[in-house]
Amino acid sequence: VNHDGEEATLARLAAHLGPGAKIGDDAAWLDTAGLASGQLVATVDSQIDGVHVRCDRVAPQHVARRLVAVNASDLAASGALPRLGLLALAAPPGYDVDSFLAATAESLAQLGAELVGGDLARADQLVATLTLLGVPARRGPLLARSAARPGDRLWLGGTVGESAVGCALVAAGGGWRATDPAPHLPPGLVLEHRDAAQRALHRHLAPTPQLALGQHLAGLPRCAALDLSDGLAKDLTRLATASGVGATVDLAALPFSADYEVLCQHLDLDPLGLGLGGGEDYVLLVATAPAHNLTELGLVPIGWCESEPGLRARTADRAVRPLESSGWDHLGRLCPPAPKGRQEIAQGEAKRSPG
Amino acid sequence: VNHDGEEATLARLAAHLGPGAKIGDDAAWLDTAGLASGQLVATVDSQIDGVHVRCDRVAPQHVARRLVAVNASDLAASGALPRLGLLALAAPPGYDVDSFLAATAESLAQLGAELVGGDLARADQLVATLTLLGVPARRGPLLARSAARPGDRLWLGGTVGESAVGCALVAAGGGWRATDPAPHLPPGLVLEHRDAAQRALHRHLAPTPQLALGQHLAGLPRCAALDLSDGLAKDLTRLATASGVGATVDLAALPFSADYEVLCQHLDLDPLGLGLGGGEDYVLLVATAPAHNLTELGLVPIGWCESEPGLRARTADRAVRPLESSGWDHLGRLCPPAPKGRQEIAQGEAKRSPG
Repeated sequence: VNHDGEEATLARLAAHLGPGAKIGDDAAWLDTAGLASGQLVATVDSQIDGVHVRCDRVAPQHVARRLVAVNASDLAASGALPRLGLLALAAPPGYDVDSFLAATAESLAQLGAELVGGDLARADQLVATLTLLGVPARRGPLLARSAARPGDRLWLGGTVGESAVGCALVAAGGGWRATDPAPHLPPGLVLEHRDAAQRALHRHLAPTPQLALGQHLAGLPRCAALDLSDGLAKDLTRLATASGVGATVDLAALPFSADYEVLCQHLDLDPLGLGLGGGEDYVLLVATAPAHNLTELGLVPIGWCESEPGLRARTADRAVRPLESSGWDHLGRLCPPAPKGRQEIAQGEAKRSPG
Repeated sequence: VNHDGEEATLARLAAHLGPGAKIGDDAAWLDTAGLASGQLVATVDSQIDGVHVRCDRVAPQHVARRLVAVNASDLAASGALPRLGLLALAAPPGYDVDSFLAATAESLAQLGAELVGGDLARADQLVATLTLLGVPARRGPLLARSAARPGDRLWLGGTVGESAVGCALVAAGGGWRATDPAPHLPPGLVLEHRDAAQRALHRHLAPTPQLALGQHLAGLPRCAALDLSDGLAKDLTRLATASGVGATVDLAALPFSADYEVLCQHLDLDPLGLGLGGGEDYVLLVATAPAHNLTELGLVPIGWCESEPGLRARTADRAVRPLESSGWDHLGRLCPPAPKGRQEIAQGEAKRSPG
């Protein structure tokens, strides 16, 4: 309905953004004179229908907010703050492009950034790509995944696995309608711990980029960081490989959200499997010298780096076993890994109402 | 075949790019300290299978080069030079991602730019999005489409319509194989003026961004510019609207490539229609005070700006008629406008060989 032309759409966006809007020319001019550090940070990430989101269940404005959040999470992992966004939106006929653009601009504004350019095109499948430019939060050493050293402690900025549960709930029929203030559970799904399920859906659909945390971490003398997008095991492999170290994760220390494990049980999902490989957690994974206690920043210690290459897990019985890098590889598969029961929620232990 | 994972693909790209490659972290760090002007210019543009390119006929390396060229053309229109690129590549299973990445990096390098980041994902349809960051070619007033004034002369940086003929030739079976040095004509198509057809294919598939011209224009005291991507009529409407002027185009002055009109005739295409609305010409449209003679820069005068709003065309008989803005709107249609006979080349006046 809103496909009445790129020109008209951009005009509406410019009107929505107000008189200061920079939309219009072939390229956007970015004033970098005010950058104290003389450095820009840039990242690009997409949301694709059927891969990262389900457009049949999640309204355009919520997809747009998620797009901004996952990009901002990359900047958080670099210790940078978002400033300027460029959107390339390829959408199928009838897609509510106006709402998507408005929500993108709004979400960027909430993070202190501005939508300065973009490209609109038609495609069979929604492919929304945001390039986010940011500035370093402070002078000093930059956050990078290659800065870990043997002996470093490993920390997590938040819980893992919850987003994957939310993803499974979307697969089972959950979603987020345009004007609803919160996501909705799969219709007809009878479930104890509905609050936990609701939180999991929100966590999956509206992740919170840890920008303030990244800013703090950038002040440490040496610190390796990345954001968990493809699962702890896979992203830790990346950090360890880039740093030339090995790592051991203390499985008993992995932080889970309230009622996460019992919710998984109800949904016939594997809590530890999702915690290690579920992906899209969008919390920071950090390695730094053991002298730094990051508990005050809300981080949870989950293991340590070693000179011996490879990933290991210490189980509850204190045995140490090799840990597979089994995260979500976007080129390798279309969907997050299907742990036990992922696709079978409706038929699983969770009870459906007769209606 | 090359979808063995994002990690492996990026590792191969890093190896291809050599030891200085910046690929790897969540975000790319861009050093802006050396920017004399304190300004960055940013643009984003996509190539989508079935919309801008046909992946069944054009090999990944050639699609990648086209992606770089169309983005660089936007920078040219801003009087900027490319410096840094970020690629988001959503590709179907089996697509030769490696070749695409390598060609992107190579094409950027040829323009003095560097591939510093990216995102790989799987999609049903190729959607390749490049964000290109550049620096102003020189201090001074920036090129913008809003700078035209009544009385300005209108200039074109090159010929129009030829790319649309190339597009029609691709639709009829032309294309560009991976290792071929040049595109190939539709198999079996018997045609006089094969050289002109070959040039049209090349013009369409491998446009040349007018970066040096943009650099020169940025040195003029006042100059409006944009690059022709959606057809002269539509892009001139944009320039005129943004500048608050009207414009008249002298149709007899429109520059066409050698043998363009006779080639159109053979292919049953409308040369003037394609010149005005074919799109993807990727030459600069310029408006500047009549005191400046831009002939030396290779520009061709095609009309003038007026205070009376709207677009007009002066025909060969010196009559002036309203000119429709009939360019290619990416949200409005899936393909370039189909002028007379566009889809019917094979059945048109051009003769097919028995084979």
